Amino acid sequence: MVEDPWSQPAARRRLSFVTDPLLATGLGLIPGFAATAVERDRRGGCPKAERDALRRSGLLGASVDGDLGGAGAAFSAILDLVRLFSEVDSSLGHVFGFHHLMLATLRLFGGAEQWRPLHARTVEHRWFWGNALNPLDPGTRLQRGDKGYELNGVKSFSSGSVDADWLIVSALDADERLVVAALPGTRPGVTARADWDNMGQRQTDSGTVEFRQVALEEHELLRNPGPLSTPRSALRPLLAQLILANVYLGLGQGALANAVALVRGAKRAWPGSGVESKPQDPYVRQRIGDAFAELEGVRVLADHAARLLDGALDVGPALAAQQRGDVAVAVASVKVQASRAALRVTSEIFELVGASATKSSLALDRFWRNARTHTLHDPLDYKLRELGDVVLSGQPPKPSFYS
Amino acid sequence: MVEDPWSQPAARRRLSFVTDPLLATGLGLIPGFAATAVERDRRGGCPKAERDALRRSGLLGASVDGDLGGAGAAFSAILDLVRLFSEVDSSLGHVFGFHHLMLATLRLFGGAEQWRPLHARTVEHRWFWGNALNPLDPGTRLQRGDKGYELNGVKSFSSGSVDADWLIVSALDADERLVVAALPGTRPGVTARADWDNMGQRQTDSGTVEFRQVALEEHELLRNPGPLSTPRSALRPLLAQLILANVYLGLGQGALANAVALVRGAKRAWPGSGVESKPQDPYVRQRIGDAFAELEGVRVLADHAARLLDGALDVGPALAAQQRGDVAVAVASVKVQASRAALRVTSEIFELVGASATKSSLALDRFWRNARTHTLHDPLDYKLRELGDVVLSGQPPKPSFYS
Amino acid sequence: MVEDPWSQPAARRRLSFVTDPLLATGLGLIPGFAATAVERDRRGGCPKAERDALRRSGLLGASVDGDLGGAGAAFSAILDLVRLFSEVDSSLGHVFGFHHLMLATLRLFGGAEQWRPLHARTVEHRWFWGNALNPLDPGTRLQRGDKGYELNGVKSFSSGSVDADWLIVSALDADERLVVAALPGTRPGVTARADWDNMGQRQTDSGTVEFRQVALEEHELLRNPGPLSTPRSALRPLLAQLILANVYLGLGQGALANAVALVRGAKRAWPGSGVESKPQDPYVRQRIGDAFAELEGVRVLADHAARLLDGALDVGPALAAQQRGDVAVAVASVKVQASRAALRVTSEIFELVGASATKSSLALDRFWRNARTHTLHDPLDYKLRELGDVVLSGQPPKPSFYS
Amino acid sequence: MVEDPWSQPAARRRLSFVTDPLLATGLGLIPGFAATAVERDRRGGCPKAERDALRRSGLLGASVDGDLGGAGAAFSAILDLVRLFSEVDSSLGHVFGFHHLMLATLRLFGGAEQWRPLHARTVEHRWFWGNALNPLDPGTRLQRGDKGYELNGVKSFSSGSVDADWLIVSALDADERLVVAALPGTRPGVTARADWDNMGQRQTDSGTVEFRQVALEEHELLRNPGPLSTPRSALRPLLAQLILANVYLGLGQGALANAVALVRGAKRAWPGSGVESKPQDPYVRQRIGDAFAELEGVRVLADHAARLLDGALDVGPALAAQQRGDVAVAVASVKVQASRAALRVTSEIFELVGASATKSSLALDRFWRNARTHTLHDPLDYKLRELGDVVLSGQPPKPSFYS
Repeated sequence: MVEDPWSQPAARRRLSFVTDPLLATGLGLIPGFAATAVERDRRGGCPKAERDALRRSGLLGASVDGDLGGAGAAFSAILDLVRLFSEVDSSLGHVFGFHHLMLATLRLFGGAEQWRPLHARTVEHRWFWGNALNPLDPGTRLQRGDKGYELNGVKSFSSGSVDADWLIVSALDADERLVVAALPGTRPGVTARADWDNMGQRQTDSGTVEFRQVALEEHELLRNPGPLSTPRSALRPLLAQLILANVYLGLGQGALANAVALVRGAKRAWPGSGVESKPQDPYVRQRIGDAFAELEGVRVLADHAARLLDGALDVGPALAAQQRGDVAVAVASVKVQASRAALRVTSEIFELVGASATKSSLALDRFWRNARTHTLHDPLDYKLRELGDVVLSGQPPKPSFYS
Repeated sequence: MVEDPWSQPAARRRLSFVTDPLLATGLGLIPGFAATAVERDRRGGCPKAERDALRRSGLLGASVDGDLGGAGAAFSAILDLVRLFSEVDSSLGHVFGFHHLMLATLRLFGGAEQWRPLHARTVEHRWFWGNALNPLDPGTRLQRGDKGYELNGVKSFSSGSVDADWLIVSALDADERLVVAALPGTRPGVTARADWDNMGQRQTDSGTVEFRQVALEEHELLRNPGPLSTPRSALRPLLAQLILANVYLGLGQGALANAVALVRGAKRAWPGSGVESKPQDPYVRQRIGDAFAELEGVRVLADHAARLLDGALDVGPALAAQQRGDVAVAVASVKVQASRAALRVTSEIFELVGASATKSSLALDRFWRNARTHTLHDPLDYKLRELGDVVLSGQPPKPSFYS
Repeated sequence: MVEDPWSQPAARRRLSFVTDPLLATGLGLIPGFAATAVERDRRGGCPKAERDALRRSGLLGASVDGDLGGAGAAFSAILDLVRLFSEVDSSLGHVFGFHHLMLATLRLFGGAEQWRPLHARTVEHRWFWGNALNPLDPGTRLQRGDKGYELNGVKSFSSGSVDADWLIVSALDADERLVVAALPGTRPGVTARADWDNMGQRQTDSGTVEFRQVALEEHELLRNPGPLSTPRSALRPLLAQLILANVYLGLGQGALANAVALVRGAKRAWPGSGVESKPQDPYVRQRIGDAFAELEGVRVLADHAARLLDGALDVGPALAAQQRGDVAVAVASVKVQASRAALRVTSEIFELVGASATKSSLALDRFWRNARTHTLHDPLDYKLRELGDVVLSGQPPKPSFYS
Repeated sequence: MVEDPWSQPAARRRLSFVTDPLLATGLGLIPGFAATAVERDRRGGCPKAERDALRRSGLLGASVDGDLGGAGAAFSAILDLVRLFSEVDSSLGHVFGFHHLMLATLRLFGGAEQWRPLHARTVEHRWFWGNALNPLDPGTRLQRGDKGYELNGVKSFSSGSVDADWLIVSALDADERLVVAALPGTRPGVTARADWDNMGQRQTDSGTVEFRQVALEEHELLRNPGPLSTPRSALRPLLAQLILANVYLGLGQGALANAVALVRGAKRAWPGSGVESKPQDPYVRQRIGDAFAELEGVRVLADHAARLLDGALDVGPALAAQQRGDVAVAVASVKVQASRAALRVTSEIFELVGASATKSSLALDRFWRNARTHTLHDPLDYKLRELGDVVLSGQPPKPSFYS
């Protein structure tokens, strides 16, 4: 771990100068996360201890309004924490961000009588929310029963579902409409399977959740305004996409910071380089600068998108489609740039350090594995096509669960 | 020329929503600049009519303080105009930006008794300043004479020197120190040769200025604080670099806007594409989105650097090296990204449109020729190496005339 | 012009060691072509003197069989000449290659009673053939008249049509079928307009040919076997594509050779580089190596495709679809790689040399302008899609006029 | 595993049509290697069973002359096998290639009285050779004793050392000269530590070998002609580099073949793509074609370099520096291109398939991990710099252990 400000291009660097209590709290968690990150990556499974540390930190209530017991932070502050955590552990960055996405989902898809008590109880009980909302997966059905609803089926890619106190779930109703609901993870019939075993993002518990005759009541359905029904409601996918972009950015920054620390400590230069140490190597210096400049561009673009998003969230129900569209364009732009920068930097860091960077004990490949895994969330080519359509048509992008 | 906001990713798009009088004035000049841009690119030489239009517009006084008759605009507002002009004519964007760089040079290198009257007279007489400050070119010497100084030699790459009312010039004195001075372009012995004939930036008059026994007086030398002598004085190269970055960005945006307009009007899709018109082509849509996202990243990064620069200029003489360093890092980052984006976009636009884009009457190659020429101002590899050194050392970049 | 073998990665390098009379003849033309290339690029129009030099050289008969008076060269030898000429003048490389493409078209689309006499007379009269075969352009119609056929309409992108002794033309007949014919450029009603004025390939005369009530006789129609009717007939587009790839490769090689010569002669290194001359600059050395390695890959791939093509041509009428497919895959691969390498190298050479490379007198931008113009012949994205289909399906590509 | 020819761009495709007994034998080993590749990658350590299968196959004698009991194969045939094995297991590809490199080292550095009996006994006893020649690692010393020499020290990056029957080792003598020797892996004092635990190439046993008072006799030292002492002797590093390039190429080809198989079997297209299945997706098709075209370029360049290498080996002791230089340039070019293609393709395959490609059971990340690890063998930037020097100077590259 490197301590000086310049080698930590983003969050940490700024944090060292700020007194914001949320960021200070987040920074306090970093050493603990970092100490076990390599080992936990190897192991996979649920990062129970770290999730509990997040619970204890109070950061799970960061985005909850002050009058409900939370810190009332802007979403941009949540994204700063996502990025910070992702520098050392992008699994934690992801589930932390998605916890707040679930809280925002309540607020954007549901009524005040729904989200306010759930937000308050989240702070009170230090709930960690998990995700079982996956619009591409038609595997869950909602049926009307005698006294309420019944949920059945299996949901894939349910990040943070193991150890989730509460879940947001999507299902198709009898009319093939998408319904979104909130329910406790402990409700009878709900089984979050610990079956996520993928090459990256290994501690996100993004496996399957099984629902067997799970009872749901009307007031648990987020129908008013419901998913993507208004420009404001349609901000939800933008929050999700911007969380992802900040995870990617954090991965790139963390990878670079690790490589820079190794370069600084490197004893030997390449024979024939004409220089005495690796930090003097002209190509190493240039490549570090290149990675930095690329990440700096992504960082500033991510902050820009976050500011636009904060502004749109502040508008409330009257949010215009055009303003939502401006946010969507900014978010799509940074999603693309962050994906590419993360993939490039997490692969190129090895060329800075040389063959010794491949030791398993360093596990530097986890940055690429995490970036590669997570950047497949939805395809860049269609994101770019959508941006092209915006430019060609002069119209804001059509809201979907991916844009 | 395309009119709707989305296809004009940057300045124009925002301008259509703002009431800022400077930007409105600049926007008013665009049709005139655009109407003759192709023909003037072919011709090269001095864009006298357009320079006079800039004189008449009052925009040459934009960065002059209000109490001296100017508009008191922040430097970021000048950069917005540079970008705007560069979308249609990057030669004008360049000389306009460098005019204001000369005004800033007076202020950063000289004393109030020097810059204040010159600023005031610039507004009053609508002077257009040209550049003969070229630290790499040792061709001019300053000698002490009986009653003052004498300047001799030839200066290359003197942008905006033909038709310049006043010039800033650099020379080496008897002790090989760099001295910077301000003098009228009409002073006896000064000859701005109209000898710039290069493949791009063809109307920047970036040729040679000859100085033969040119008299200079002590009060015309900008010695206090002098060039790069303090963190504030060392902001000057950052202004220059950020002007360049905005020229590149404008080139990219202008190129894309032209290509998008042609795609919209294209009658035929590629046979075998399975679509009926070019705007429906999946690859064209994707590539437009890609170019847009890349330019959007540069735009936001350029605006970020401009804000930091405004802030540093506002600090005044007490500016700390660290804050100057923060600006330098932001400027270097955007310089790199803008160079690459401009080169890429100005070349790729042809693939959007197809072979018909190569007609000489469109002169779409001028965007690439201008970008390719101007991005050679100073080498990116050394800019990146410098950024790498910053990251490795944790120290701000060492000021030079290029960083 | 640089003379030593290593800086001329391809044709010239090998030529200095070979005694092949065709290549020696081609090499002998190079100084004359090179001496006026910059000026002719500026002027555009028809390179009459150089075309006549090609006529005098006998190289227009190179691909004609020995028993018909030609040199009986393999098509790969023609491609070597295309590449060689394109290093100094890609317009000449293109029209020279297409002349031989026209001769091959006679042979592949027509019967022996058609191509043999025309080949013989081509050698005898030193004819230069031009192209008016453009399957995408439906502008010409063939109608049956009382005593033969009549051709009407206008054909675009007719390379080498001005000053063409004979032409190959395509037209749609009454049944909307594509018919290909050979006729003298001097036939009444044929007007090759000197209207090609594009940013690159400026001396290819790729403008329009007008046909007004042009008489055609049955024996002038190449109907047996006709266009793309058999695997062998369908080799014709592969010849065209491989000519293009070699033009691109020659452009890249020529651009690099010019830049290397300038680097060698450069007086100054970048200040702060720590080296004394540009050829010692670590980034310049690396970038030259990079460009060389890329072009070397393209060169070897082009030679490989040419060998496959020679082999397929040698098979004769019995050529199997699978073998034709193997050639098509190789040709498509090199077309893609050559396009990219040419665009990259012709743009990057400027970074090797610096700002002085942009002087109009050098006209180094012509390499990029030529590459950019010519690589738009048909879109790479669809070429890549087609290769993807080959990989996915396990089937050879479906012959078309572009693959 | 995919069986049809087109999806297997290289070795396998050709193999299905050839009757070469070596390749047929190699192909016969593939199913066994493939069946356990994922599991063995996870486990790391020594692939004893597979090494024994190679011993039994007779392929370890492939490069041994016929009169010594071997197959007398050209080195290009060995490289074909390296590539083939690397498609499914690049650890085996590497150690197999390096086994033959060791045999070639005997022949290139030693006398006939040394290499001939060792080659013959290699075939007879089915020896597998390992590598402890590492010129960058000064950790081993050779001292003259009373009755011979004594070897002491520790050697890193000793690929194939565990389970090696014989080793080639390098050491510095009292005069700091590099000495190379051959000795049995079972000689007292030799300990091959099973301590290679890196993120890629996990079954290459590239860990350390310890030498404690290991006796060496004069006739075991390869002093005549000795390392890099003649152009022929200096072919040895080129063999090594070309083995690496073929490992990288095989990795790229194997990765693409796996992805293509998954795309073919994919049930769903991306929602909004407008197509019904993934193989119809325009971007997937294009990207597959792109990866194919890039690998095809590398394949042809690798074959070209192998032919040049075969030719240079055939020349014998009289090999000229210029011919050795031609091989070196070809090898360096393909090393660069293969490195880049392997890194790009092994990362991009995930975008073809989507998120399901990241399942641990597929272990598709091993292609990237292997490529990323192995491409750090020696830095590309210096390889490119060296090529640049060749171009600038017109002189062949100076032989070293890396070029």
